[in-house]
Amino acid sequence: MTETVTMTEAEVAELAFTALTGAGAREDQARALARAVAAAEREGISSHGLAYLPTYCEHLSCGKVDGQAEPRLERTAPGAVRVDAACGFAHRAIEIGFESLLPLAREQGIAALSLHNSYNCGVLGYHVAQLAAGGLVGLGFTNAPASIAPAGGKAPVLGTNPFALAVPGSGGEADFVIDQSASVVAKSEVVMRARAKEPIPEGWALDTEGRPTTDPAVGLKGSMVPSGGYKGFGVALLVEVMAAALSGATLGIDASPFSGSSGGPPRTGQFFIAIAPASFSGALFTERLTGLRRAIETQENAHLPGSRRAAMRARTDAHGIPVAGHIHAAAAALARDPAGT
Amino acid sequence: MTETVTMTEAEVAELAFTALTGAGAREDQARALARAVAAAEREGISSHGLAYLPTYCEHLSCGKVDGQAEPRLERTAPGAVRVDAACGFAHRAIEIGFESLLPLAREQGIAALSLHNSYNCGVLGYHVAQLAAGGLVGLGFTNAPASIAPAGGKAPVLGTNPFALAVPGSGGEADFVIDQSASVVAKSEVVMRARAKEPIPEGWALDTEGRPTTDPAVGLKGSMVPSGGYKGFGVALLVEVMAAALSGATLGIDASPFSGSSGGPPRTGQFFIAIAPASFSGALFTERLTGLRRAIETQENAHLPGSRRAAMRARTDAHGIPVAGHIHAAAAALARDPAGT
Repeated sequence: MTETVTMTEAEVAELAFTALTGAGAREDQARALARAVAAAEREGISSHGLAYLPTYCEHLSCGKVDGQAEPRLERTAPGAVRVDAACGFAHRAIEIGFESLLPLAREQGIAALSLHNSYNCGVLGYHVAQLAAGGLVGLGFTNAPASIAPAGGKAPVLGTNPFALAVPGSGGEADFVIDQSASVVAKSEVVMRARAKEPIPEGWALDTEGRPTTDPAVGLKGSMVPSGGYKGFGVALLVEVMAAALSGATLGIDASPFSGSSGGPPRTGQFFIAIAPASFSGALFTERLTGLRRAIETQENAHLPGSRRAAMRARTDAHGIPVAGHIHAAAAALARDPAGT
Repeated sequence: MTETVTMTEAEVAELAFTALTGAGAREDQARALARAVAAAEREGISSHGLAYLPTYCEHLSCGKVDGQAEPRLERTAPGAVRVDAACGFAHRAIEIGFESLLPLAREQGIAALSLHNSYNCGVLGYHVAQLAAGGLVGLGFTNAPASIAPAGGKAPVLGTNPFALAVPGSGGEADFVIDQSASVVAKSEVVMRARAKEPIPEGWALDTEGRPTTDPAVGLKGSMVPSGGYKGFGVALLVEVMAAALSGATLGIDASPFSGSSGGPPRTGQFFIAIAPASFSGALFTERLTGLRRAIETQENAHLPGSRRAAMRARTDAHGIPVAGHIHAAAAALARDPAGT
């Protein structure tokens, strides 16, 4: 039997905020991240909810994240915003960037934001959904330490590099969100199997010689399999060009790990594009989206990407967020005593 | 033994131009498309070279394409350009759009172009490469008649919808180009096998009930398999949102076929984003690209996307373009007597 604690979104955010400020984060840094932690729990993405809090706190103490960082924003061209995240949490830097990006995109038709000296931004779809909530099509890219090898190669060159797209609905929320990594499965899935000493299915990871493996530990030393082979590598490369090359952030091959405490700040990057539908679609945008949604949802068992997360939001809004007892206990302990003394 | 005619790029363009104007295209419409046909032959993409010319000419006569079309350009916002292709060839409409898009992106940091009432734009990478040749990162999307079903569904909702990315090099040409469709293989591969009455490998196409098939004729009535399963569908959906919903073009579910002569103009769409690296990367763009290129190319057998096309360009520039005798003969016949009388 597993004990479960039922929480509201506000309670999750409050708990995360207390732990993060206790571990050394400024209030603005902690607030931006705590809100995202609570949103992940609300959507049932528990891997990026309170379960991640010990890592965030560890990264504040070991110096992977500077909790006192003040991101610096620069307007470099009429449609361009550049933010130096200053090795703080990505969430606060993105929040600052979006304050400029949203009005700019409405005015210019399209605008973009690049971030460097950044960090793991958590659930990428969370960020682009905020652009959609502002009536804009939001397209996001974020890079990560290298774990995918090119077709024909053995050494990892690119991270599992997700892209995300959020599309504005009529009700002030995202109509739907695509949020997908370039690998067959998330690296965290392989890490979990390695911890549990369970085999992984063939097709998830390769050994250091590029051969299939079912041993998660071997796979973690080797590389992750890109979704759809060379086309998955192509998607990861698109993301690397946008999030790292175009933003002047650190490439996945040079970035320190997102896990553990060594290597200092990863200094990875993000890139966001926000587009005003009215500037391009001749007022047909909503009609087209409705047609697209209908063509998918009238098919039994078919659904739009992100519909599971949307269903979880409805469920947790009605019945509260179930948090596993041991995860709640660890988060509560951090909130009481961040130094773990 | 197959006879081969060796041609220069200019000769291919001239032959295509003569056939297209003869079949009823205005000179500006014919010139833009003829240039792309020649570029495809130069890159060894013979499916989109002279072999496609009979289809283009047929589409001029049956009314799928209006050879007299004059695309209309509208500046809708400081960073936004919208072009009504007026059911002419996509190539001329894109050419007109790019004349505005390039200077705009340099000035704004980022700008975008949407096209509606458009047509099959051929090799998508060809277009974005022109943005890269202008010093910009070019990102392109184009939609197509529906042939991919959503995960869990059976009926096609999205086309094989490619995206393309071109990255500027230092020498005034694209450094590399990603150009990939959302399906495991191009639909034309299945069409070719159906004509040749050869089976297709399992994993390319599904029957109308969503079950795997090795019969190409059955697959053409069913749907194409998306690359990487639901993630390939996600990429196709990203493309549909950009190229059709955001541009106000016709959705893949409503578009008439790109092949054959029935159904009138497909009225599909394109969307292009052009980005000035200097506005976002703090002058680190070229350095990052060099690092990325090195990490891939120092691995034996690994290569950047688009490197096969680049190698073909070098080869055909040195030795001429080999065109299969029967394809050359058909093109030459069209150039002599477009009506086929």
